[in-house]
Amino acid sequence: MSRMLEEIRQQPEALARTLSAEMRSVERFRRRLEKQRPRWIVLVARGTSDNAATFGRYLLEITTGIPVSLAAPSVTTLYDAHLDYRDTLVVAISQSGESTDINMVLERARARGALTLGITNERASSLATLAEHTFLVRAGKERSVAATKTYTGQMLVFYLLAHALGGGVKRADLERVPEAVEAALGLEDEVNALSERYTYMRNAVVVGRGLNYANALEFALKLMETCYVVAERFSSADFLHGPIAFVEARFPVFAFAPPGPTWTSISQTLEKLHNLHAEIITVTDAGNPEAAAKATRVIRLPRRVKEVLTPIPYIVPAQLFAASLAAQKGLDPDRPRTLSKVTQTI
Amino acid sequence: MSRMLEEIRQQPEALARTLSAEMRSVERFRRRLEKQRPRWIVLVARGTSDNAATFGRYLLEITTGIPVSLAAPSVTTLYDAHLDYRDTLVVAISQSGESTDINMVLERARARGALTLGITNERASSLATLAEHTFLVRAGKERSVAATKTYTGQMLVFYLLAHALGGGVKRADLERVPEAVEAALGLEDEVNALSERYTYMRNAVVVGRGLNYANALEFALKLMETCYVVAERFSSADFLHGPIAFVEARFPVFAFAPPGPTWTSISQTLEKLHNLHAEIITVTDAGNPEAAAKATRVIRLPRRVKEVLTPIPYIVPAQLFAASLAAQKGLDPDRPRTLSKVTQTI
Repeated sequence: MSRMLEEIRQQPEALARTLSAEMRSVERFRRRLEKQRPRWIVLVARGTSDNAATFGRYLLEITTGIPVSLAAPSVTTLYDAHLDYRDTLVVAISQSGESTDINMVLERARARGALTLGITNERASSLATLAEHTFLVRAGKERSVAATKTYTGQMLVFYLLAHALGGGVKRADLERVPEAVEAALGLEDEVNALSERYTYMRNAVVVGRGLNYANALEFALKLMETCYVVAERFSSADFLHGPIAFVEARFPVFAFAPPGPTWTSISQTLEKLHNLHAEIITVTDAGNPEAAAKATRVIRLPRRVKEVLTPIPYIVPAQLFAASLAAQKGLDPDRPRTLSKVTQTI
Repeated sequence: MSRMLEEIRQQPEALARTLSAEMRSVERFRRRLEKQRPRWIVLVARGTSDNAATFGRYLLEITTGIPVSLAAPSVTTLYDAHLDYRDTLVVAISQSGESTDINMVLERARARGALTLGITNERASSLATLAEHTFLVRAGKERSVAATKTYTGQMLVFYLLAHALGGGVKRADLERVPEAVEAALGLEDEVNALSERYTYMRNAVVVGRGLNYANALEFALKLMETCYVVAERFSSADFLHGPIAFVEARFPVFAFAPPGPTWTSISQTLEKLHNLHAEIITVTDAGNPEAAAKATRVIRLPRRVKEVLTPIPYIVPAQLFAASLAAQKGLDPDRPRTLSKVTQTI
């Protein structure tokens, strides 16, 4: 069994541990924020952590009303610009806490008056030292190059940050997340059987919208790095603004399709894809029976949760799919060619 | 000849017209901003206009130090969140000025206290009515579904906005842009000859960084919508954080490689790609002789300009390439299957 699959299975326990162990830091940070509420939030990250940041962006804007920006690191690291970060909370997200460029952006922001927070899986990392406050993802050491448990851990920490900012995210709701993930892991056999159909898939598209848009980015990244599939990723709305032109009959499109505010938009895209005879694979739950109507294949989450809580359980079958497809293709998802666990960029 | 190619060739004239006709609006807006300088800028757009916005984000942050965010429209249109846009300049960018979701975000932002600016090619559009201020892209009617002259026109308007915000962008410099584009159009025969090699290309990657990152997004979009190539787009740094794993020998990677602050980062990525025996096609100019060393093919701009001015001339050979490749493949870039000129999303 791959380490990736082992780590996927560790997620319920890792999430429960993070939730119980980090509440004290969260309450402390909440008191700090009551004295100095940020007017803007900037998130800075790369790779899977950047996908978690994209989720955080939607969650924080929707629940707190504070505008959020995803930082462009090169503005600081290559162009040496001096951004006005007064009244701003700058959050750096990094599994290892050792990304040179991410740490540089955080350090510069702190020097220029930003309130800084680090989100990392490594307590003794540079990031944890550089940031004024730290939230730890307590996922345990991540050994697979393909990040899984730190992605869901980082997403959970964003719920805690929304809570600290008064965003109405309830702890009681969050406590249902680990069990929803446990239930999603029960899809493993079904997903294994499904993945076989895609053994020779070379291209794919993954779409999502709103809170699940980040999952489209993350699923596509997993397909690229562990299965070597050229996987495009789009918001279901952006996909209609040009890229859909390349879709031919049987072109595989994976769609995150929870019930709730995004369904009308997603269904508009699926309708067009259906008319193009695309192969549509939806990830959904019992609350959205319509998501099966236009789909070639459906992955249905066994446990229904509120839409705001769907992103963590919804990525689980996608992680299982990538691990299984890598195995079908005879690839090692723990050591993709060309990659190493910590990527240094400037 | 396709309308797309006609419109590509109209760019020097369109840019010169926009530059001379819009200076009065720009000066008026500049006086308005002196009384009420925004602390934060939010850009909202889709498709090619969103790519221009991505350029605008880098340009405005680098030249003015004001943090910029690219809006996630669904936060407003689907989740009905109330974002705190006080002290914020919200800029909507739309060729037609008739995008439902973009206009809704702008309207809501204005109601909530934002200073609003519309950037559009259509003087009589809904966007021009909804926004407090309007900058017109005076590209003339755009008939091809594949946007070209409005993309460079929108980029030019972002320089004007940076100027209005006191960002040190000089009019004398901007006046050299149309002639640099005219010189770039001289590459047409060379690009036609080059494109033949890629007639059967199904996949590609386009990378850029910093001010030319938006061009990577735009070139990939043109390859997707006019040539039906599954074209991925990445910052050259993000590409190393996972996706590079799918690159095999001869995989085509197009790279915007101007001299200046981003070259060290781009060259790090090209070095890795070279070792993987990828097919590397660089877009560069005489100021960066190193950009040829690792490349399979080089497109060299004939006129050298300051790095901050490279994005407009650098997209021109990419536009020519897409138009030419569509012709090689027997496709009509003016009417891609599935698409219409104005795409409505929510």
